[in-house]
Formats: sequence, structure tokens, C-alpha cells
Amino acid sequence: MRVAKNLVIQKFGGSSLATPERIKQVASRVVREKRKGSDVIVVVSAMGDTTDRLFQLAKVVSPNPPRRELDMLLTAGERISMSLLSMAISELGYEAISFTGSQSGIVTDTAHTRARIIDVRAFRVQDELNKGKIVIVAGFQGVSPNKEVTTLGRGGSDTTCVALAAAFNAARCEIFTDVGGVYTADPRLVPKAKKLEAISYDEMLELAFCGAGVLHWRSVDIARRFKVDVHVQSSFSKEPGTVVTAKENIERAEIRGITQDLNVASIEARGLDDPMRASEEILGKLEALGIPAKLIIVSSEEGRVLIVLPEEHFDEVASEMDSLGISNLRVDTEVATISVVGNGLCARPRIAKEVLASLSRSGLKPLAISTSGISLTVLTKRDRVVNAIRNLHSDLGLDSPS
Amino acid sequence: MRVAKNLVIQKFGGSSLATPERIKQVASRVVREKRKGSDVIVVVSAMGDTTDRLFQLAKVVSPNPPRRELDMLLTAGERISMSLLSMAISELGYEAISFTGSQSGIVTDTAHTRARIIDVRAFRVQDELNKGKIVIVAGFQGVSPNKEVTTLGRGGSDTTCVALAAAFNAARCEIFTDVGGVYTADPRLVPKAKKLEAISYDEMLELAFCGAGVLHWRSVDIARRFKVDVHVQSSFSKEPGTVVTAKENIERAEIRGITQDLNVASIEARGLDDPMRASEEILGKLEALGIPAKLIIVSSEEGRVLIVLPEEHFDEVASEMDSLGISNLRVDTEVATISVVGNGLCARPRIAKEVLASLSRSGLKPLAISTSGISLTVLTKRDRVVNAIRNLHSDLGLDSPS
Repeated sequence: MRVAKNLVIQKFGGSSLATPERIKQVASRVVREKRKGSDVIVVVSAMGDTTDRLFQLAKVVSPNPPRRELDMLLTAGERISMSLLSMAISELGYEAISFTGSQSGIVTDTAHTRARIIDVRAFRVQDELNKGKIVIVAGFQGVSPNKEVTTLGRGGSDTTCVALAAAFNAARCEIFTDVGGVYTADPRLVPKAKKLEAISYDEMLELAFCGAGVLHWRSVDIARRFKVDVHVQSSFSKEPGTVVTAKENIERAEIRGITQDLNVASIEARGLDDPMRASEEILGKLEALGIPAKLIIVSSEEGRVLIVLPEEHFDEVASEMDSLGISNLRVDTEVATISVVGNGLCARPRIAKEVLASLSRSGLKPLAISTSGISLTVLTKRDRVVNAIRNLHSDLGLDSPS
Repeated sequence: MRVAKNLVIQKFGGSSLATPERIKQVASRVVREKRKGSDVIVVVSAMGDTTDRLFQLAKVVSPNPPRRELDMLLTAGERISMSLLSMAISELGYEAISFTGSQSGIVTDTAHTRARIIDVRAFRVQDELNKGKIVIVAGFQGVSPNKEVTTLGRGGSDTTCVALAAAFNAARCEIFTDVGGVYTADPRLVPKAKKLEAISYDEMLELAFCGAGVLHWRSVDIARRFKVDVHVQSSFSKEPGTVVTAKENIERAEIRGITQDLNVASIEARGLDDPMRASEEILGKLEALGIPAKLIIVSSEEGRVLIVLPEEHFDEVASEMDSLGISNLRVDTEVATISVVGNGLCARPRIAKEVLASLSRSGLKPLAISTSGISLTVLTKRDRVVNAIRNLHSDLGLDSPS
């Protein structure tokens, strides 16, 4: 892909595009960028809760719809928002053109409803940029090598945006959200959460993977590999946001944030003869299904395997476990994870101790603990998690001065 | 295109697909056909009033949206209905696959929002039929040679259906509607209207062109050229419908039906020096815009040109007339046409006399009259037209015995 000069890529999510009025506001913002002399690509999600509503409609017709048809259905959502945004921009006197994922050259594998991008062949996007047009791209969508329409799954629009930024070597990649940046905790749950000026890819990846909704971890993964600085900004104000970047000092040991994931489920087996082999089989199945394991714990002594996975894929995985012949499965759909993220956490066991002590004071019992170089994740019952997070934010000294 | 054996093509309109429940009913009907051993292609419109609602959304964002983007927007409608129908069929245990107009190989010219089909390259449809699948095709949509998404305009789904029937040389082409057939007049307005068993292409073309909503005239035109028998049937009952066919006796002189069009506007100029040249220029403009003239009257003695066109295109045409420098234009958006259709009408001037006498008794004044070999059309004020149609239906002896 050729390098466009001064190319800015902006992504707007569903709530920023929820009504015709908001679409007009987004159009004004896009045009403001174009006026500066930039080339502009805009990546859009579906309006408001359109995707959820389409999904509900599918469920009425078929409890377990074919994934290929589900992708066909859901992609109607961005089609509506992208064409309306294009019209709104034209109305302001600027030339715009909207492209589906397929037309934009977002080539994916064939895994319907959770496809992965394998290539970006954005020739049509390039041609229209060359003509001076503002190009609007449907986020979340792609096309497989056999010409089938695919979707990228949760957070797909972020992924589309960063993938395009990488392919075009964009001068700036901006993700507009309600919350306007990355915080030390979800500001809707923890009022004293602080906005971060900058965060490293690794830290952001951990936060995102552990539940922070502001960016999807797959988009962060692409940003990290292609060294794309991602600017997370507010859709509704001009306040500075957070930049996700490689330039963050990797040596500094510091807690960057706390996050939680209330949409997980756990599957556990105990008393297995060969838990290692069982875990390998399970992970192979998950890989084949394209489902990420949020947490994996294997204990040989107890013959125990525990996996934590997104609740939405729970039924699917549970039935696969049956086919593996692993018996005595205990499932729990009332669990949550709490994660603390920061570079160098592994070098400071004191932090783990403080986290466990704080959670215990909040009345939470850890069901499992997992650590990586830069994160610590605790699995607990879902009950009282929000309160525990607030306390933990304070106990770890993250509260902003009030 | 290869000839599929026992291929049945069924088209379902928006009201037949308005809710998930109706979609399930349509799925059952489709599956019933498949069980007979037929290959089945289903052409669908958007659910209920989806197309209108999307159009309204566009108008909020932009009073005069770019047509290319309008097509992108509107095609979201069939995408939703086709994928839901495919899911509903799968749910009944049959394999189905949905295709957009582009995927179905409906190749059109580049005239966005009113494209014409120039070729049908339905290779993917053929492949899936060969695999035994029920293929669902988005009506109303196509793709231009430069890969842009187009729509066929009003009645586009009928057109898609008949074009596919012609391309595949289908054994049977069925159009399902609320009214369940072709009547001597619109049964919603004229309660005594009779359902016709059969009607010739020419007569149906005239009825459709003059306002009968049951089939779009473009689909009838294709049916005539490719000798496709079109079976118009009820979505909700098993009553026999009407077949549009070449086999109707062309010699019989008989009134087949009355129709009206309340969605027309007239543009008139008088006192022109060269009305012939003016009319040529106007028709050239309409041709370029892809807008049909419903009625054209040129009178050299009075220096008069009168054209009647679809009301929806009125603004567009009026501004073009200005650019032609034709002054003293009189426009009227409160007019309607009433048409009587039947083979051999031209050979029976008595019928014209009876029509005019009946309209006069109903208090209508003809503003213009136009005749063809098989039709007579009267332009009047829109007021009192429905009542006049009822009287005319009775006066011409078309009322069914009560």
C-alpha cells in the first residue's frame, strides 16, 4: 500500500452515530480534519444498538442461526451508518464515498462471526483518497478469499481502524469513544479513576484482554505489531485523550489500571488422570473455534483444569468439552475476573499481596489467580465485584485527588 | 446459463416478510415447494416498510443525498430479510444460502436508484442449486460493471425475479402478493372487481404502466421478451391467481381492466413556436435521466406540449425544463390518470365514447386523452377519481355478479 501524506484515520463507535443528529456532528468533525489538508478515512460501527437488535431478530427466527447468514444480516448495520455519514458529509459540501468491508479490501479468513484479518487490499480506498475524497469504511466487516461476507466479532471496528492505519502507514489513528480515553479503571464504575496520558501496547493489551471496553485487544495487538500510535479521544469534547504507543517507558514499574470482566464463565474439571493432555485438547478445540481463553489454570497435583472464557461462547465450548469425553465438568456462569495491569508487576510481589488483601477486605474470595509479567488476574464470584474494584482502586493509591 | 430442471422461482414482497412470524410462514411455503423435488430460488424484498424508513432517515441527514450512497443505504433492507429467511429455512432442516444482487450476478448499468439490468451472471446461484440448496436472492439490487452497488427502483424485486426466471429458463415463476392476482380493477378500491385467470403480456404491460401496482411494468416487459409465464398468487391463501402469458388469445377484443395512477404530475407549455422540437428535447432529457413519461401530448396548432410523469421525479424534471429554456411552464401535481386496458380497444371506438360518458357522469373533466392499440388513458384532476373508477367499472359491465 502506498503511503498517503498526512493521512488521518478516525473511528466512530455506535453511540457516536446513534441518531441522524449525531451523524451530522460526526460529519462536521470529519470535515474539520479534512479542512486541515489531511487525507481522511473514517471507520464506522453500526448506529446505536442496531447490531444487537439485528441479532435479536435472528434469534426469533432461529435459535442457532447459520453463521454465514448471521454475518450477512449483521453487516446491514454498518451499511446504514456509513451511507448516512457519507450523505451528511456531502451535505457539508465535501466529497465522500462509503465502502463495505469487502470493497475496502479487508480480507479475512473464513471464520464467520469471528473472522481474522489476513490482508488489507485497499486499492479502491487509495483511488478515492487520490481523488481527494473522504473515504468511509464499514468497520467490523471483511470478505473471505471465497468471496463470502464475514464479520470480525466483538470490537471489530477498532480492529478495522488500526489495520487500515497500519496498511496505509497513517500519520494519525484516532478512536473516538464516549469515555474519551484510557483510565486507571472504568470511570463509570470508579468515579475517582484517572485518565492516562499514555500507555504502552503491552499494558493496553492486558487491560483490553482483561475486560477494558475502551479498545478491543485485537486492535491493540495489531497496533503493537505495526507500531501504530492509537489516540483514544472523546466523541463529544475536545479534551485530550490517551495515546497507546511504543514510546512509553518500559522500565518503569507502575500500576497503570484496574479492569474487570463480568461477562466470563468458567469450566473446571478435577480428578483428571492427565490434566496436561486434557488442557492441550481443550486449547486445541478453542483454537479451532477461534475462541480466546481468558485464563487457563492446570494443576497436575489436583488433576485440575480450569478455563475462563467469554460467556457468549459458553454453550458452544461446553458441548465441545462433552465431545472430548472429559467428565465431571463443573461450570460456573456467575464468575468475574479482576485484573491489575502495569509494567514490571512481576518484579513486585508486594503488589500481589496488596491486591489479595484488598479483595479479602471487600469480602471476595479468589477462586483462581493468574499472573503474567505485567498483570495479575483474580477469578471470583461476580457478586460485589464493582464495590471491590472501587476499594482496590483506592487501596492501590490510584484515586485522583478529590 | 444452464437450464435447471424443475426450477421454481418465487418472489415475496415486503408485507409477506414484515415480521419474523411471516418470515417463518414464507419459509414453510418455500420448503413445501422444495419437498416436491424442485430446485428453488426465492427473491425477496425488504421487510415491511424498511425501504421507506431508510429513505426517510436519509432525508433527515441530507435533503438530496448522493444516489450512489442512497443505493448503499437502501440495499441494507433486503440484506436483512434475505438472511433472516435463510435462517428460518435452515431452522426447518433445509439448506439455504442468501446472496446479494451483486453476488447473484445481477449486472446493471450505472444509473443509481433506477438501474437497468444488462446481464445476469448467476454462476454462484447455479453452483448452490447444484448442491441442492435453496437460494435466496435480494431483489431490487444489482452491481454495475465498475463494481458499484445499484438499485433497480420501484418494483425492482419483481424485475429481479422475472430476469432470473428468464436467465435460468425456469419451469415456473411465481410472484406472491397481498391481493393474490390481477383484477379488473384494484379490489381495494373497487369491491366488485373480478380476478382474471389469465392476461396477455401486452395488456398486463399497459395495466402496470398505467398504475396497477400488482406487477411492475419492467418485470412484465422482461417476461414478454423472454416468454416467461408469470404466476401472480396470494401470499396468504392457496386460491388460484392470475397467469401473465403469451398464450392469451390476442384476437379477442375485450376490456381486461381499469387502473389509475394517483402519483403523477403534469408539466405543460403552451404557445411554443416549435413544440415538436421542445418535445424532442424534453424526451431526450427524460431518457438521459432514466425517467419514463407516462403520457406525452404534442399539439402543433396550439404550440402545446404536455407530459405526465411519476410525481416522485417531478422536482428533478421541472428543474431540467428550466435548463431547456422552455418558459411559461404550467405544472400540476394534483392530477391523476385513469386507464382502460384490453386487446383490440382501438378497433372499438364505442368504448372510448362509453368511458368519456361515464367519467363525465361522475363529474370528471378530461384534461387530456391518449390512446394506444390496447389502452385508453384519461388525465383528470385527482379529486373524485376513486368514485369515478367504481362507476366506470360498473358502466363497462366489469362488475362481478353480486
